[in-house]
Amino acid sequence: MLLGRVVGRLWAARQADSLGGRKLLLVRPETASGGAAGRLVVAVDGLDAGPGDRVIVAHGSRVRDLTVGPDVADKDVVIGIVDGVELAR
Amino acid sequence: MLLGRVVGRLWAARQADSLGGRKLLLVRPETASGGAAGRLVVAVDGLDAGPGDRVIVAHGSRVRDLTVGPDVADKDVVIGIVDGVELAR
Amino acid sequence: MLLGRVVGRLWAARQADSLGGRKLLLVRPETASGGAAGRLVVAVDGLDAGPGDRVIVAHGSRVRDLTVGPDVADKDVVIGIVDGVELAR
Amino acid sequence: MLLGRVVGRLWAARQADSLGGRKLLLVRPETASGGAAGRLVVAVDGLDAGPGDRVIVAHGSRVRDLTVGPDVADKDVVIGIVDGVELAR
Amino acid sequence: MLLGRVVGRLWAARQADSLGGRKLLLVRPETASGGAAGRLVVAVDGLDAGPGDRVIVAHGSRVRDLTVGPDVADKDVVIGIVDGVELAR
Repeated sequence: MLLGRVVGRLWAARQADSLGGRKLLLVRPETASGGAAGRLVVAVDGLDAGPGDRVIVAHGSRVRDLTVGPDVADKDVVIGIVDGVELAR
Repeated sequence: MLLGRVVGRLWAARQADSLGGRKLLLVRPETASGGAAGRLVVAVDGLDAGPGDRVIVAHGSRVRDLTVGPDVADKDVVIGIVDGVELAR
Repeated sequence: MLLGRVVGRLWAARQADSLGGRKLLLVRPETASGGAAGRLVVAVDGLDAGPGDRVIVAHGSRVRDLTVGPDVADKDVVIGIVDGVELAR
Repeated sequence: MLLGRVVGRLWAARQADSLGGRKLLLVRPETASGGAAGRLVVAVDGLDAGPGDRVIVAHGSRVRDLTVGPDVADKDVVIGIVDGVELAR
Repeated sequence: MLLGRVVGRLWAARQADSLGGRKLLLVRPETASGGAAGRLVVAVDGLDAGPGDRVIVAHGSRVRDLTVGPDVADKDVVIGIVDGVELAR
């Protein structure tokens, strides 16, 4: 899973039926130094996260099936909103 | 899923039957700062996207099955054309 | 699998049921020169690892099923705590 | 799928039976600016590609099953040789 | 699959049963210029490779099943030891 920051939302009028009009969040993965890491991730929101939230994004068909349902064409799902991070050293 | 910009099209006369002559788009993934992130992605177009469009590309066997069909040897599919992005902060 | 250093823990009060309240570790992947490589990984701890430990993180549905169970929405699992590394040349 | 350039071939006398002595190509993934992106990919050649060719490499168990067969321990397969690229802008 | 150099071995006394005490190699992926690419890979050795060897590492559940067995919680397996590389241009 990845740790990232919600940096925005996306709208797409033309979309495959299998996206189902769900709320899509733009998530910026984080590095150990708090910087941005590589490309943005578009994740389905299963927890009502908002801009600025730090979230845990899981990837895979089973997490999709367990959360937003098997008929969704997306395997990146927000499954946790982070309250605290305890860093070592 | 990734957010990217359509930067071109590809033609391949010599191709595996399983590609089926489908329209192939070159997509450049984006970072939070709008820059390019890593390598290009070749995606099957299921929505008639064009050069310059910002698109959402999903990856996986189920999204392929649900959109372009199970006999296509490609798991990267354009499943949304982005109308708007609302950035936080 | 990846080699990384445990750099902290995460708490998430709002989380999908499928995470099951399990202990979540932040792991920083390592490069050959000992530096940090890309984005952080959030992994379920199956071995009681702690901050500063060097760990092996496996990814996949089967390792998840074999260790923390099939109903967990996470495919990154700490499956080894490293005692020694013998570097060549 | 990725777009890359064939930069060489590999030979491996000691190999798992499941590789089956197939022709292995070294492919360098490309970025939007034509540069090299990250690590090299070793792909099975299903189309008789040669050094210098620009190729499309697909990844996954189904593409492998559809092209080189289910008993091959490789999921990266050259499935197209690029004739033309039309870049936008 | 990736091309990499074996840079060392790992020992982990505390490990999940599903690793089965197998020999674990640290592999540094290579770029086209021979440099190191990103994070290290921990792979199970199915061919008795040693430090300094250039190896091909495959990833996936089927290669694991075909080589080291289905009960191993690792999907990165050394499946070839490289004798020669013929670079184009």
